[in-house]
Amino acid sequence: MTFEFDRGIAVTARADGAFDADLDGGWVVGGGVNGGYLLAVIGNAVRQVLEPAGHVDPFSVSAHYLTASVPGPATVETRVVRQGGRFSTVAATLSQDVDGVATPRISALATYGDLDRAHDATTDAAAEALHLALPPPDLPPREECLRSSDAPEEVKKIAPLLDRFGTLLDPACAMWAVGRPSRRGVIQGWFKLADDRPLDPIALLMVVDALPPTTFDLGMPGWAPTLELTAHVRAKPAAGWAVVRHATRTVAGGLFEEDCDVWDSTGRLVAQSRQLALQPR
Amino acid sequence: MTFEFDRGIAVTARADGAFDADLDGGWVVGGGVNGGYLLAVIGNAVRQVLEPAGHVDPFSVSAHYLTASVPGPATVETRVVRQGGRFSTVAATLSQDVDGVATPRISALATYGDLDRAHDATTDAAAEALHLALPPPDLPPREECLRSSDAPEEVKKIAPLLDRFGTLLDPACAMWAVGRPSRRGVIQGWFKLADDRPLDPIALLMVVDALPPTTFDLGMPGWAPTLELTAHVRAKPAAGWAVVRHATRTVAGGLFEEDCDVWDSTGRLVAQSRQLALQPR
Repeated sequence: MTFEFDRGIAVTARADGAFDADLDGGWVVGGGVNGGYLLAVIGNAVRQVLEPAGHVDPFSVSAHYLTASVPGPATVETRVVRQGGRFSTVAATLSQDVDGVATPRISALATYGDLDRAHDATTDAAAEALHLALPPPDLPPREECLRSSDAPEEVKKIAPLLDRFGTLLDPACAMWAVGRPSRRGVIQGWFKLADDRPLDPIALLMVVDALPPTTFDLGMPGWAPTLELTAHVRAKPAAGWAVVRHATRTVAGGLFEEDCDVWDSTGRLVAQSRQLALQPR
Repeated sequence: MTFEFDRGIAVTARADGAFDADLDGGWVVGGGVNGGYLLAVIGNAVRQVLEPAGHVDPFSVSAHYLTASVPGPATVETRVVRQGGRFSTVAATLSQDVDGVATPRISALATYGDLDRAHDATTDAAAEALHLALPPPDLPPREECLRSSDAPEEVKKIAPLLDRFGTLLDPACAMWAVGRPSRRGVIQGWFKLADDRPLDPIALLMVVDALPPTTFDLGMPGWAPTLELTAHVRAKPAAGWAVVRHATRTVAGGLFEEDCDVWDSTGRLVAQSRQLALQPR
């Protein structure tokens, strides 16, 4: 395997049916390992479970984040809840050993199918006739955007995952980096992996949590731990730069929701997510 | 118990720790029992499990719908995944006996806490300072809206659940009822239960799936089975009429996402949900 994302999400099936994973320290951000990367690790294990059924693509993955993960060994246990004709559903738990005790980090439910079979001429023509395809936001050209991997070294020490990405942030939503947040609760930009690993449905599970939390744009820097994140993969992404937009509309009771939309280089919406996260203190 | 919603979601703990439920035929719509009602049944069982921990309110519930439920006996099995200081998470499965075989209908993950403790003066003041509180849509006065329980008898035969609600639909998004869908993919209106049972966090799990699917407004009448639905309860609702808004933005590959927001009578956002559902054929 050539790309660091594939090395990072690699899982090995054990004799007891569980999977061994090794969480890479390069995906650390703030108080833990990035939630999107962890979702892709789980998603990769589920894919291996459902490959014989031909259900290789995540359609909907819901994850409840229980405790913060740390770099190092992890186990993904899976249980097929239902295997069907068009979709299969698997329950999965990612755990880590803490002082000899298996400690659950994330519980997830994942419904998989075959995206190639979902998109046929009939359904796509029907959908197109409805004129309901969310267009990507207008972004400045990439040369006018801010490279997140150009962040100061003291930031990258806390967030080494910035070096995994080729993210180019829309300057209009990135002025929090110089102490002038727009206070709109929006962060958006161009996205690719730093080593140009092509995006695919499993990678999209990571992309939906790859940008800084929208709370940065609200003047609240700091770690915003995810309580729950559900990702829907809507189509296989075409090659090239993706466009990612995060927005929050409601901060209340110490929590905020963050919606993410991802479009591929052709402007097609390929993934959506919503997470409920804790407001930074 | 006086109200039909409470009778409908009642669960009885068995000696083995599972819960018995009896799915009420009054909540049937199209090809199955309403998904929001089923979510409230599961939510009620989870509440009983977490009551000793003081975590009585759903914050985030993710449900993957596996097979269509039918009226009659059902079992809710629960497993505490994590019990913590601020939140606890439970995995739950609702099953029904089909020819002697326990058949899973819904798998869910539920994170509960105490909404009274979430909203304190400090966090609410901080959130208010951010001016990020999604306002409810402008709706016509209730006397100008359309009572969904006034639907023709042949419709109510397919959807007896309409009689459970006092829903008053915004006419601008209800012209599909006379063959003139707006094609915006929006359905909104005023909401209360028919017997004036007050809304509470568990009832909100049902409210997020109580309106007709937005595909009606796209000129696609017919049942739109839910694949996945995640509901976030953001605050305890005040007494009185709620406002509910459903919108879809992307129909693709035979699926559409439907976002729902619920505001209480004071205009406060109290619940949000997103579901991924199958486009009606």
